Amino acid sequence: MAAPVEFWFDFYSPYGYLASLQIDEIAARHGRATVWRPFLLGPIFQRQGLAPLVEIPLLGDYARHDFARSARLIGAPFRLPSAFPKAGLAPARAFYWLAERDEAKARALARAVFRAVFVEDRDGADPAVVAELAAPLGIERDELLAAVARPEIKERVKAATAEAMARGVCGSPFFFVDGEPFWGNDRLWQVERWLETGGW
Amino acid sequence: MAAPVEFWFDFYSPYGYLASLQIDEIAARHGRATVWRPFLLGPIFQRQGLAPLVEIPLLGDYARHDFARSARLIGAPFRLPSAFPKAGLAPARAFYWLAERDEAKARALARAVFRAVFVEDRDGADPAVVAELAAPLGIERDELLAAVARPEIKERVKAATAEAMARGVCGSPFFFVDGEPFWGNDRLWQVERWLETGGW
Repeated sequence: MAAPVEFWFDFYSPYGYLASLQIDEIAARHGRATVWRPFLLGPIFQRQGLAPLVEIPLLGDYARHDFARSARLIGAPFRLPSAFPKAGLAPARAFYWLAERDEAKARALARAVFRAVFVEDRDGADPAVVAELAAPLGIERDELLAAVARPEIKERVKAATAEAMARGVCGSPFFFVDGEPFWGNDRLWQVERWLETGGW
Repeated sequence: MAAPVEFWFDFYSPYGYLASLQIDEIAARHGRATVWRPFLLGPIFQRQGLAPLVEIPLLGDYARHDFARSARLIGAPFRLPSAFPKAGLAPARAFYWLAERDEAKARALARAVFRAVFVEDRDGADPAVVAELAAPLGIERDELLAAVARPEIKERVKAATAEAMARGVCGSPFFFVDGEPFWGNDRLWQVERWLETGGW
């Protein structure tokens, strides 16, 4: 089977949320699995000398308009969190911890976090909220809270972010299709075309 | 007839060049004309606190890769100018000067400048080169050189850039379809869908 499509994202990325609703289906249409790779956008923006998107003059206003429009286009519920952006450390840590034991549950948790952040305006950066979202998946609250505080789990997220940077990930979402890089939810049509045609 | 699609661009924007090859056809498919509006990206980037795209870590490398890939996708010749970016003042001034007298010629000159910059690696910021490109259109070299040095023509480009900023243009290319803003060559499919559907 061909290599999975890599889906890199930050939990506080609106376009990452929108891509999370589409990427598995796009990959599946072409017989591909996906690998979900949360990372932190903060250090990437810092390296680039960039402020968060919504804080950049002109671009920020456009982005606010476009987040909502991009969501409407795919019929997805969306609301910009009242506190935005935040560093999605806790969900990223929980994701990698869980993924080692059960990848499907990790992905289900990721979806729940995205929904909490971008639909329900809950604080997805709060470990207690992440633990609450994980409970329906059969994850013990205390076990998760202990896990996300462990140095080796923190290290996983640092390593993922370092890997993203080393591989040229310049924003969220970011995709690799057989090594080919694509940045942005609005490039999903190119991801699909690359899968279809093998590249151009 | 419905309002024309507005096409805002900087003459040293690779994505602006790629959009210039497509926008008229896209608009025409939906019974729309286009209005071409060159402006200067420099002051917009400055207001945003942004460096030129290719100078931003991570993003710059991605952009270089993506310029070429985006060109291949539409079968367009492309090469990044050896001196890049530059302020496309002279061609923008020549464009507005010419557009007052003959819009079709102004557009033909714009196409010639884009080709000179992004295919032939010529200095599209040099008034002498712009004059040379205008000659086949029946424009006197000296008349053009005098025009682009006139204060009222310089003012036109300043005013266009100020208008772009006031209307939220955050990059190049930028489109307005019945007032709806779209940023980026990779959003042309959304421009087309908006024209098709009247919006979503």
